Amino acid sequence: MFTGLSAFPLTPLANDEVDFPSFIRIIERLAASGTDSITALGSTGSYAYLTNAERAKVTHLSVEHAGGIPVFIGVSALRTSQVLTNVNEAQRAGAAALLLAPMTYQPLTADDVFGLYKAVSGNTDLPIIVYDNPNTTHFTFTRELYGRIAHLPGIASIRIPGVPTCPAQARKHLQAIRAMVPSHVTIGVSGDAFAAPGLNAGCEAWYSVVGGTLPRLALRMTRLAQEGHADEATAESERLAPLWSLFTEFGGSLRVIAAIAEHLSLVQNNSLPLPIQGLNPNQRTRVAEVVKALGLAA
Amino acid sequence: MFTGLSAFPLTPLANDEVDFPSFIRIIERLAASGTDSITALGSTGSYAYLTNAERAKVTHLSVEHAGGIPVFIGVSALRTSQVLTNVNEAQRAGAAALLLAPMTYQPLTADDVFGLYKAVSGNTDLPIIVYDNPNTTHFTFTRELYGRIAHLPGIASIRIPGVPTCPAQARKHLQAIRAMVPSHVTIGVSGDAFAAPGLNAGCEAWYSVVGGTLPRLALRMTRLAQEGHADEATAESERLAPLWSLFTEFGGSLRVIAAIAEHLSLVQNNSLPLPIQGLNPNQRTRVAEVVKALGLAA
Repeated sequence: MFTGLSAFPLTPLANDEVDFPSFIRIIERLAASGTDSITALGSTGSYAYLTNAERAKVTHLSVEHAGGIPVFIGVSALRTSQVLTNVNEAQRAGAAALLLAPMTYQPLTADDVFGLYKAVSGNTDLPIIVYDNPNTTHFTFTRELYGRIAHLPGIASIRIPGVPTCPAQARKHLQAIRAMVPSHVTIGVSGDAFAAPGLNAGCEAWYSVVGGTLPRLALRMTRLAQEGHADEATAESERLAPLWSLFTEFGGSLRVIAAIAEHLSLVQNNSLPLPIQGLNPNQRTRVAEVVKALGLAA
Repeated sequence: MFTGLSAFPLTPLANDEVDFPSFIRIIERLAASGTDSITALGSTGSYAYLTNAERAKVTHLSVEHAGGIPVFIGVSALRTSQVLTNVNEAQRAGAAALLLAPMTYQPLTADDVFGLYKAVSGNTDLPIIVYDNPNTTHFTFTRELYGRIAHLPGIASIRIPGVPTCPAQARKHLQAIRAMVPSHVTIGVSGDAFAAPGLNAGCEAWYSVVGGTLPRLALRMTRLAQEGHADEATAESERLAPLWSLFTEFGGSLRVIAAIAEHLSLVQNNSLPLPIQGLNPNQRTRVAEVVKALGLAA
């Protein structure tokens, strides 16, 4: 279950409240796309900004509208007790697994983070995906900590934040992680620009921002890599370089992918939670040009 | 009102729930100490970890037990709409002012942060303290952004994250900020090791972690600097160097100040919100030695 493409949908807002009708349409579109799984309430799903009631409703709607595709639910929160509340809601909704990042406000130690995963592991029978996203959590995992956590009951996968783009270095990087992690725990790449290098180097999954909004694009690249067409997967990733460049230039993938979803009328305008403002008009023009040049609307 | 010592109390937990009786005793102790103001629900008050109900109760208890001393309330949250909810609660409780940090999960732009302060400024008549704490928010203010925000209605003070320890450099640093900020907006130093350098260089306030747990110590240093005894304030700060060193060595002030409060029986053990674990036994021994050597219990 923790292999192939996991698509991370946006949780769109309208007038600064969650736009549930648009969210349902996004989930149904993903369900129809053939993605291997859906991960709702990841960073792309703005989980950190939602109220408890909004998170609970998004959790239930995700499972209800996924047409039987496995749904993983992000349960992260700053406080362990709140994480456990989110875990209970995900269980009630019928989630297939949990995605858990070590959110920080005060910097956390390795023991704090291990304690968090241990607490969740001990309080659920659902599989857990370890969510390593230093750009948002500001926590840096070591391979040793991957190993400690991966040996806890129920740990099913680790979402790593990218790999070296050089194939030989990427394989070496993956092997070093794999040496610390039991074989039943899959390793999934994130950071969409690293998807082809990661899958080609042996990552079993791609936890994908772009897959949540442009699933066909992400599926094509995933299948190429899975079927051993490493060069074609690399070529497709290189073709998309203008998109990856926008992610870097505009401060991460979220604002760009939201602008794309707004441009394609998948969501309403101003779909991000304040204080996060969307891209400005000049930036949106650049996004529209890339959407057109790369045929992303197709 | 935004001058002198503002003491930042802990919000202690017991069995992972807010320990309201201990919190009330902390507030009453601060009220009796002669501190110029109390700032509840700052970073030291673990605001980011509390439920809405816990934050509301802490807000009301702070004002009710402060004996008329001005109480500033931290209203920060990741989402602007939640900040405005916290603002309403602080107003209802009778807070004297609001403390507002640009909390981040997704990195914020300067325009996002300006928009946040503008939204709060436009929705309250309470004075606002700008809370610049890059260690926890991971947002870096520029002097230009200080200036833009400081010109909004209601901005009363800026809490800066430390100054150079060299007196001449500290004065220059303050003057550069002051040049961007209207004269009615006070500048307050934080990072307790920088209190004496900051006050001596012209900061009008000290937003103090140590003041929330060891108010007499903080008041003595504040008054020395305010009364022009710069050398004595510096000497007192240098005497406390072993305490400042623990803050650095143990990953910030929060775990150390919580360990001191636990050691002095002001709060119960394990007073921090999980996943944040307290210091380990060896670290606590080191803290106890510094408490004894510096006479902090007096």
